[in-house]
Amino acid sequence: MVQSMPDCSPAKWHAAHTTWFFETFLLSGEPWYKPFDPRFRDVFNSYYKQVGEHPFRGDRGTFSHPTLAQVQAFRAHVDSSMERLLSGELTAEQSALIELGLNHEQQHQELILTDIKHAFWSQPLRPAYAPSAASSQSSTEPARFVSFEGGPHDIGHQGPDFSFDNELPRHTVWLQPFALASRLVTNAEYLAFMNDDAYHRPELWLSDGWDTVTRLGWKAPHYWEQSPSGEWTYFTLSGQRAINLHEPVCHVSYYEADAFARWSGARLATEAEWEHAAASQPVEGNFADARRFHPHAASGDAPIRQMFGDVWEWTGSAYLAYPGFRPAAGAVGEYNGKFMCNQFVLRGGSCATPRSHIRATYRNFFPPHARWQFTGVRLAKDER
Amino acid sequence: MVQSMPDCSPAKWHAAHTTWFFETFLLSGEPWYKPFDPRFRDVFNSYYKQVGEHPFRGDRGTFSHPTLAQVQAFRAHVDSSMERLLSGELTAEQSALIELGLNHEQQHQELILTDIKHAFWSQPLRPAYAPSAASSQSSTEPARFVSFEGGPHDIGHQGPDFSFDNELPRHTVWLQPFALASRLVTNAEYLAFMNDDAYHRPELWLSDGWDTVTRLGWKAPHYWEQSPSGEWTYFTLSGQRAINLHEPVCHVSYYEADAFARWSGARLATEAEWEHAAASQPVEGNFADARRFHPHAASGDAPIRQMFGDVWEWTGSAYLAYPGFRPAAGAVGEYNGKFMCNQFVLRGGSCATPRSHIRATYRNFFPPHARWQFTGVRLAKDER
Amino acid sequence: MVQSMPDCSPAKWHAAHTTWFFETFLLSGEPWYKPFDPRFRDVFNSYYKQVGEHPFRGDRGTFSHPTLAQVQAFRAHVDSSMERLLSGELTAEQSALIELGLNHEQQHQELILTDIKHAFWSQPLRPAYAPSAASSQSSTEPARFVSFEGGPHDIGHQGPDFSFDNELPRHTVWLQPFALASRLVTNAEYLAFMNDDAYHRPELWLSDGWDTVTRLGWKAPHYWEQSPSGEWTYFTLSGQRAINLHEPVCHVSYYEADAFARWSGARLATEAEWEHAAASQPVEGNFADARRFHPHAASGDAPIRQMFGDVWEWTGSAYLAYPGFRPAAGAVGEYNGKFMCNQFVLRGGSCATPRSHIRATYRNFFPPHARWQFTGVRLAKDER
Amino acid sequence: MVQSMPDCSPAKWHAAHTTWFFETFLLSGEPWYKPFDPRFRDVFNSYYKQVGEHPFRGDRGTFSHPTLAQVQAFRAHVDSSMERLLSGELTAEQSALIELGLNHEQQHQELILTDIKHAFWSQPLRPAYAPSAASSQSSTEPARFVSFEGGPHDIGHQGPDFSFDNELPRHTVWLQPFALASRLVTNAEYLAFMNDDAYHRPELWLSDGWDTVTRLGWKAPHYWEQSPSGEWTYFTLSGQRAINLHEPVCHVSYYEADAFARWSGARLATEAEWEHAAASQPVEGNFADARRFHPHAASGDAPIRQMFGDVWEWTGSAYLAYPGFRPAAGAVGEYNGKFMCNQFVLRGGSCATPRSHIRATYRNFFPPHARWQFTGVRLAKDER
Repeated sequence: MVQSMPDCSPAKWHAAHTTWFFETFLLSGEPWYKPFDPRFRDVFNSYYKQVGEHPFRGDRGTFSHPTLAQVQAFRAHVDSSMERLLSGELTAEQSALIELGLNHEQQHQELILTDIKHAFWSQPLRPAYAPSAASSQSSTEPARFVSFEGGPHDIGHQGPDFSFDNELPRHTVWLQPFALASRLVTNAEYLAFMNDDAYHRPELWLSDGWDTVTRLGWKAPHYWEQSPSGEWTYFTLSGQRAINLHEPVCHVSYYEADAFARWSGARLATEAEWEHAAASQPVEGNFADARRFHPHAASGDAPIRQMFGDVWEWTGSAYLAYPGFRPAAGAVGEYNGKFMCNQFVLRGGSCATPRSHIRATYRNFFPPHARWQFTGVRLAKDER
Repeated sequence: MVQSMPDCSPAKWHAAHTTWFFETFLLSGEPWYKPFDPRFRDVFNSYYKQVGEHPFRGDRGTFSHPTLAQVQAFRAHVDSSMERLLSGELTAEQSALIELGLNHEQQHQELILTDIKHAFWSQPLRPAYAPSAASSQSSTEPARFVSFEGGPHDIGHQGPDFSFDNELPRHTVWLQPFALASRLVTNAEYLAFMNDDAYHRPELWLSDGWDTVTRLGWKAPHYWEQSPSGEWTYFTLSGQRAINLHEPVCHVSYYEADAFARWSGARLATEAEWEHAAASQPVEGNFADARRFHPHAASGDAPIRQMFGDVWEWTGSAYLAYPGFRPAAGAVGEYNGKFMCNQFVLRGGSCATPRSHIRATYRNFFPPHARWQFTGVRLAKDER
Repeated sequence: MVQSMPDCSPAKWHAAHTTWFFETFLLSGEPWYKPFDPRFRDVFNSYYKQVGEHPFRGDRGTFSHPTLAQVQAFRAHVDSSMERLLSGELTAEQSALIELGLNHEQQHQELILTDIKHAFWSQPLRPAYAPSAASSQSSTEPARFVSFEGGPHDIGHQGPDFSFDNELPRHTVWLQPFALASRLVTNAEYLAFMNDDAYHRPELWLSDGWDTVTRLGWKAPHYWEQSPSGEWTYFTLSGQRAINLHEPVCHVSYYEADAFARWSGARLATEAEWEHAAASQPVEGNFADARRFHPHAASGDAPIRQMFGDVWEWTGSAYLAYPGFRPAAGAVGEYNGKFMCNQFVLRGGSCATPRSHIRATYRNFFPPHARWQFTGVRLAKDER
Repeated sequence: MVQSMPDCSPAKWHAAHTTWFFETFLLSGEPWYKPFDPRFRDVFNSYYKQVGEHPFRGDRGTFSHPTLAQVQAFRAHVDSSMERLLSGELTAEQSALIELGLNHEQQHQELILTDIKHAFWSQPLRPAYAPSAASSQSSTEPARFVSFEGGPHDIGHQGPDFSFDNELPRHTVWLQPFALASRLVTNAEYLAFMNDDAYHRPELWLSDGWDTVTRLGWKAPHYWEQSPSGEWTYFTLSGQRAINLHEPVCHVSYYEADAFARWSGARLATEAEWEHAAASQPVEGNFADARRFHPHAASGDAPIRQMFGDVWEWTGSAYLAYPGFRPAAGAVGEYNGKFMCNQFVLRGGSCATPRSHIRATYRNFFPPHARWQFTGVRLAKDER
């Protein structure tokens, strides 16, 4: 039931809201369907203004009622009603909404993990969520830069498989020649940045980033803590642990990713560059399915590694509409389009993302100060 | 577990904190005592700086851990340890601390009720806490003013019974002749004030009060709601109900109590006036023991009614030290003294106060904007 | 024209507002009077809701218009109109309002000094307002405590001379025996408090005070600054100067005054104690008339010194109505009464107060966090 | 001297800061140069962290000192020193910095106008800055959409003339076929949007935009006011005036521009589309040189009008680095690059922009809520 900051939601709320999606967008139009509780239409609405009222986001932690048992009964009621719906003929629109509802629930599965991590870290006892998945990695290869050619390239989703509306339409972009790092930035590399006094050097930061760093007193990624003797540890879903230097750095904001890249003499990739590079890679990696819930050091000998899983990679691209973008009709049109402002695109999924949820064209987005998601850094460079 | 605003605390927290008091101030000094969990000393500290660290007040709603079962085990552990302590010889200081701990727990019993009321009101489903105690009162006698003589009078606690340090020492004050209303202000009277456009007339209000009214958009007491057709209801611990006009008005701030008195051509009593008048009254009334958890209309034929129970009565006295006040030594000295600033004194207890907790000399205190306690109004006048 | 914080006003505004008082409360009712500019009635209203609209207080620094020349013409216009009014018969009410208007202007004369001090301190170049009045004081006698008897005493204004409504009516209070320090607390004594780590010891502070100290990072009185080598200086109306240890400490909040008294094993006087002691003292001291605009070390051999002038003395009394208080009728009734909430009483005037403005019964008031006035500390004690 | 909000600066500050630029970046390195006042290096620094300290932006309105006369003397001192510098040999870097300083001063000339407009509007008397330039326009042609072909196009500055670093390097982008409106959106068109209840329909707005609209209570463009009888007027640099329906709508935020476009079934142009279309247009229009300081209705018979002057046109492009962007070396590198976050690009200049300052490749940028600049809307569409 904990909501440790307005951006997070209680696990009970996630469970109810994902079920609400199916009731609201699929079942409520069926003449035979009887709502579990008509008040839930407003109670578990997140932000769909065209559906009706919705509670203030920061109040979700006050919902002692409905109880967890009632929410579970709500889910069972909707599940069995969906089975009835699925047993009949479905229109194309219904099929699309069901697929959207399933992908929506996968997104909230990831949020349940990130929000519980924040909730458990916020309280004095700092309980652990999962058994410790001890990390045995003890080395990392130096990162190399892998080159890609410029010119016209196509990005965006195409074909019969599911995608969100913001991945459409597939369209041509013109890229300059560029290079991507062969792996994610590690904790060791990020510590070098910290030890070079980066959090006190304004010339490394965007103006908004520097204001944020000084106002909030940031000195390290979120969840990191320094002991009086100088040792760094971080909070994980398995509790407090010593930093593993070979793992990808995680829980950094766009501001930190951007400053790290500048300090490195490099930059972040654009989302088009990232997608062009990822299109040729297999969708494999350290996902939620592995139940590690923590990024892993790079391994294997592929020229480019960790493009999928581990951490979401901040790109230098603002989250905006693709040329020709059309939001879906009706209230589900509020799903993605209305957030195209003051956010940056992240790519590739994380250790909290279900494997079947991600693809090369997938566009995640968060505001540049956000740090509670599993977010990290891959360097890019202009190629001349 | 709900914390619907920083002033409120989750019921689980109240249960743990009252037990913490006994562990910290009584048991922790015993060589045989083994703390239930040493981390609780900080975790459940409210504000005693001399005890150690304490969490930020507004974070109490994040404590998913310890679980309710663990808190109950903590209470059982401390209860049995207290029984061992009580079976031996007690020093005078120990006896005093035990009595203080019991009175402390009674205060939190009242807060559990006021905080649950706020928590249940804050959420969309607005559940009820207690079965409906339907009110059958259908008349109120007009209020009269009862006169008291001026001159030197003594106030403050005296004698062997328990009191808080802020009721001490008993001392002389000089009162001018005054009169007190024979009963509390009713909802009918308060509605007349509202209908006279009082919430839009700055000349009736203290400057801070007017700023608060306009900033927060107050139009009625807290928990009141008006239907589109103009009917007023309020949220009670038994759910949403129509206003009973004969009940005492409740959940008003000092600002509203003061403005109502000004509009009435009267004023609030000082705490010395109130105590002088109350000293001759029996400590009887509508307390938590009746399990109504809601104020009742005045009844009976005593010249002055409702001095105890129903609602805490705002006085026009700032909460300050009595002449010769000495806070208790050590950390428990932080109990009362350090709050003597920007608060007003309330007297008489409420429908959520345990009967055995209250007395004529009892000084409660809240800042002038507070409305979530059971607080109401009794008028006073100068007598010439 | 500078308004360096919302509590302060530009000197041009003070000049216009004090003239507005005469136009609004005295001239606007005369049939022959033609307003200088009818818009000024709202433009230079401070907070009199019964007069009409008034600008938001924090916007006064935006008034580039009317220009200073126009404000001076406004003053000349009102001055000559007042001369015409004064040449005729005056009603008692008019006489009273004129006297009130003059006292009102004296209050703003003091505010012009305190607000310019804040404005000049706020800007990078820190200009000086007045020639340096170098202080040659090099010694202070130790403070002694002077005893006063308890029992019934009368306080409040009486007689034909002017007073504000908040000094009325004269009435009896009962005091316990007490003692007052023979002089104000000095910078040397306050430095001892600072050097005893007082700004880091929560047990010395009121709860609100401690929150304020930590939130705002207070480490010394306002206007004090420490050089990298540890030397303290302060900003004065004659510029930045080294601390003179023998002067009274100045620009402390109620929170600091109260904490200093607690650290000293003493307390602040109540306003009734202060007034009882002051009633027998001559109204002499270091006032604005001396054009020093800075407090001076105690001198002379009177048993009690510095009761008037130098710094306003925080009392431990909340600013509330005297028994029988009646605010003046009409809009001028908003002058004092509506501020009786969350403020503390200060007594005795300061080095920025005109000599003819002050008296033993005079009640000044500010919220407990205010520090930009010339405010200081005198200790008091219970006498047993 | 007025600073009516932190985004604005006093005219005196603009005058000093533009001179500071030449002193800091050009003169301070000359052995013969004697600073006018060494303290000005920090005092009039805006945000160049590599130069040194700078005052908090919102404090600029407190600078009563240096006086206007001193600032004028500072300007004369720097002007004559610059003449000495110009009379000698200049390095390429010096020439570039001088050109940058002149363009910097032109930017502040525009800001002086927008900041005075805000300052004069903020105060009760609402003075006028310039003589009224009455507008006689009484008709507007309907807007048409003009088509442009897709494919690879080059944008960005090229050649020996001055540009800011953010216009570099010239590079290829791939555009889809698109169409641009033949003129700016008018007040009449914007009123139709308002009258269609647009400020109360969340489905028309970005999520951040809707939050801003409801939080700030927006109902119309900035500077618009509705009389009790429903007539709209706006504040101009010539005072309050009735709305001219044929003029371009002005002082709208990105949120409003975006919502208007959505309501119109269109969208905003990307900056690449805009630049491609503008590249073939003459740089002519209603600039500050005309001293009208207010946008004008479209006239003439060119297929595309008002691309330059009148109002800055919000594009749908976030302000980000061009591929291959390199900020200038040293402190002047902070000029543009560090603001590439949470801002949108505007194109074309306004009625407050000097004619010689603007060009097709010019990139202006403001956060999406900003409204005090002369900002308006041109519609765009996908072409299929």
